[in-house]
Amino acid sequence: MSARRRSAGRSAKREGAQSGGVTQTSWRQLRNPYRLMEILSADEVEAIHETSLSILEEQGIRILLEDARDRLARAGAQVDPETLRVRFDRGLVEESVAKAPSLVKMHARNPRHDVLVGENYVAFTTVGGPPNASDMDGGRRPGSLPDFTNFMRLAQSCNAIHMLNQAVEPVDVEVRFRHLETAYVMLTETDKVPFVFSRGREPVADVMEMVRIARGIPREQMERETSIYTVINSNSPLQLDVPMSRGIIDMALAGQLMILTPFTLAGAMAPVTIAGALALQNAEALAGITLSQVTRPGAPVAYGGFTSNVDMRSGAPAFGTPEYTQAALASGQLARRYRLPFRTSNVTASNTPDAQAAYESEMALWGALMGGGNILLHGAGWLEGGLTASFEKFILDAEMLQMMAAFFDRFPVDEGALGLEAVREVGPGGHFFGAQHTIARYETAFYQPMLSDWRNFETWQEAGSETATQRANHIYKRMLADFEPPPIEAAVKEELQAFVARRKKEGGAQLE
Amino acid sequence: MSARRRSAGRSAKREGAQSGGVTQTSWRQLRNPYRLMEILSADEVEAIHETSLSILEEQGIRILLEDARDRLARAGAQVDPETLRVRFDRGLVEESVAKAPSLVKMHARNPRHDVLVGENYVAFTTVGGPPNASDMDGGRRPGSLPDFTNFMRLAQSCNAIHMLNQAVEPVDVEVRFRHLETAYVMLTETDKVPFVFSRGREPVADVMEMVRIARGIPREQMERETSIYTVINSNSPLQLDVPMSRGIIDMALAGQLMILTPFTLAGAMAPVTIAGALALQNAEALAGITLSQVTRPGAPVAYGGFTSNVDMRSGAPAFGTPEYTQAALASGQLARRYRLPFRTSNVTASNTPDAQAAYESEMALWGALMGGGNILLHGAGWLEGGLTASFEKFILDAEMLQMMAAFFDRFPVDEGALGLEAVREVGPGGHFFGAQHTIARYETAFYQPMLSDWRNFETWQEAGSETATQRANHIYKRMLADFEPPPIEAAVKEELQAFVARRKKEGGAQLE
Repeated sequence: MSARRRSAGRSAKREGAQSGGVTQTSWRQLRNPYRLMEILSADEVEAIHETSLSILEEQGIRILLEDARDRLARAGAQVDPETLRVRFDRGLVEESVAKAPSLVKMHARNPRHDVLVGENYVAFTTVGGPPNASDMDGGRRPGSLPDFTNFMRLAQSCNAIHMLNQAVEPVDVEVRFRHLETAYVMLTETDKVPFVFSRGREPVADVMEMVRIARGIPREQMERETSIYTVINSNSPLQLDVPMSRGIIDMALAGQLMILTPFTLAGAMAPVTIAGALALQNAEALAGITLSQVTRPGAPVAYGGFTSNVDMRSGAPAFGTPEYTQAALASGQLARRYRLPFRTSNVTASNTPDAQAAYESEMALWGALMGGGNILLHGAGWLEGGLTASFEKFILDAEMLQMMAAFFDRFPVDEGALGLEAVREVGPGGHFFGAQHTIARYETAFYQPMLSDWRNFETWQEAGSETATQRANHIYKRMLADFEPPPIEAAVKEELQAFVARRKKEGGAQLE
Repeated sequence: MSARRRSAGRSAKREGAQSGGVTQTSWRQLRNPYRLMEILSADEVEAIHETSLSILEEQGIRILLEDARDRLARAGAQVDPETLRVRFDRGLVEESVAKAPSLVKMHARNPRHDVLVGENYVAFTTVGGPPNASDMDGGRRPGSLPDFTNFMRLAQSCNAIHMLNQAVEPVDVEVRFRHLETAYVMLTETDKVPFVFSRGREPVADVMEMVRIARGIPREQMERETSIYTVINSNSPLQLDVPMSRGIIDMALAGQLMILTPFTLAGAMAPVTIAGALALQNAEALAGITLSQVTRPGAPVAYGGFTSNVDMRSGAPAFGTPEYTQAALASGQLARRYRLPFRTSNVTASNTPDAQAAYESEMALWGALMGGGNILLHGAGWLEGGLTASFEKFILDAEMLQMMAAFFDRFPVDEGALGLEAVREVGPGGHFFGAQHTIARYETAFYQPMLSDWRNFETWQEAGSETATQRANHIYKRMLADFEPPPIEAAVKEELQAFVARRKKEGGAQLE
């Protein structure tokens, strides 16, 4: 590592911003400086690759959107009009996937919040999509626009978060207006990279237009500058429904980032073996990416891995399991085989933000990040297998993410750091607290936590014996209390408002 | 990995024993099959090594025991009789360390519980040494012999635990009798590899004799068969007190395992930089190992890494920090440079078994295990920076350890596992639950948790909305309720009782 990067890392610690009276590290683009973990041999990677190509060639994918089938047929795939199955020739898949870029620059409304996705860059997002929100005060309830707004404010305030996601589903907003309301909040309460659900041509087009307005750029520039992303979950096994197929095509045409993530739960929607689930995941990911690349060669995409397993006694999905960690590491090896940015997740099956939520998330995080994850979805706030977005879990996760970010700062090993002079100064039985070597470095020496309590037992007890989850509750509320929205030009805000008003008047969007 | 090892791993899952109505994986010796993480370049490892040799040559170590200074002087070290500093020539250190074995077989009273320490073998121990015990029912209190006994029973019942440690200090037992009482419990309530504190010649000799009686073997066999271990914490910086020096010598003479672990807290007893703290750790570890090897060449030793950092605002020690993780990984590289077994730890600074305790322990575990840790001390039960042994944390940790053990089972990537046949059978939009491929494998397919709750929210809520910590409380009590001590011959038990009675009558042990 260069001295330059090292000092950048250290200074990020020093700048440790106070947002809402909350200690946190500064915003910065992360890079993983370490050699990634490999749990598959090169032969095993090839065996999974070959199996997935056999699946695509022999079984194919059932694609429900005619436009998608037509585009693939024109590129040389075999389409069965009866079963709607599209069978892919190996050459078509390999040539198409090779056209995708390995690094994508994401443009935020605030250029300071631009993010690189790919290579050894790492970006963290909020949780996305749960139908419920929860905190210790209000318990678990259906998500609402106020909950969504609060998650967006936390996402903006929290420097560990690089990109947004749909946080929680505001079920109090009519479905045909929901994308308008949430995009408006996302684009006015934050200035980080936004997200859009692929729920059909109209909502995607609406949100892309709103992003363009928020960035204040012409259409041509937006097409060149990737400014928003979506996630496409293939309907495992071997299906792509209408809105998902449409999303792949529309995002490719617009030059926006599409993450293809099969939801391959081993033992349910995928084979009960991890190798089999990975082969299926790989087949579906390559199929979706091929559709993207035949639509527009070079369109920005990422390879998503989300393979986990079910509890074979109950059929319940499990997350952050040993198998999940292994699948994440293996998926990273597959993504690197195709030189594609790799998307992973921070997940748990726990129903409450407790110790289980923490250890399952850590198992997921180590698999994700030492597997070379470039974009960590559900980075903060995911609970209950994705059915709840938790405010306390958001803060627990933010601490875990900050710790991983600090772990990515390699420590210097040079004459000054090796400290022979300090050892001479202090000698046997002495103390380094007052040493010159310490005084010159102590302010920036170590990671400072946002949430962890390192006080002694008595002090902690006098302060109320609070658990990390209880402290997380205070922290999230303090962050919200001190929230200030990022600056936005009045004219831009008005244009967004006018757009939303017009589209609502027109009846909102037709979903697919 | 061979098919043989794979099937051993899988069958361990199938055997998943029910102990006390608690689901757990079977006892087995673990191996880490993965390439270890390296965060230091080869040059950086050498720079730390060279700095530590400079420290030993120039500053030396202050050693308070004359016998130790004499042994080192006879081997060629420079002893200053005024300051009691012993300065080590580089050659002496390197030659001595090279004599230590890289793999140690630990003999338990029950040969099924023998453990290998070194190479890619991994063994987990209980927490050792806290002055307090705690659980949700009784809160935090000074440790007692009943608490100690309960921890030993959990250690015996819990298949994730390979070796014992002092669990909690029974402060209700007079100090001069304490080693006798705890060794008696350790040797009758369990049949796993025992531990002894180095608190002087007499207590160490007493406990070694009790281990010999328990194993029912002659002295000569005991000397050949390593059957007990101790941990020597050098008094950082650069000091070795009388009982620690004595422990190094006595364990070497008896052929028993000595783990040299400097307690180098960066910013307090060690330089504020991780590189500096590691250089000091390395110097102290090599000095102690040198004393062991000049006492008896080839004596079994392990290299202990325990470098962490303090909170520079308060001076409080912190554990499971990003710096801790880095130091563990780097320490593993140093231990491997000397081909020595590597000892690490599972640690947290949290005052309660909460989410912080879980995520700090996970940070420690990943550093420990991907750093190549061979013996994980404080594997289960450590809380509050080592000031409390927690019964709930014991179960939380046991789950985390079982998950890491399952992570060490590589998944097969062969034709059957790749599952092309299953994908053919199920087809687009189908479900794998009833597939032949699934039915043949589902029983042993995935890790089954001891503690984690994967039920859906409603079921979990109806069952009382318990956190993982609350469930851990039930599990530890269920394990204790169902405990049955391992078999021991009546004559052996009587001999142990007679030994304890005689030594108590003689006044117990003289501590140093």
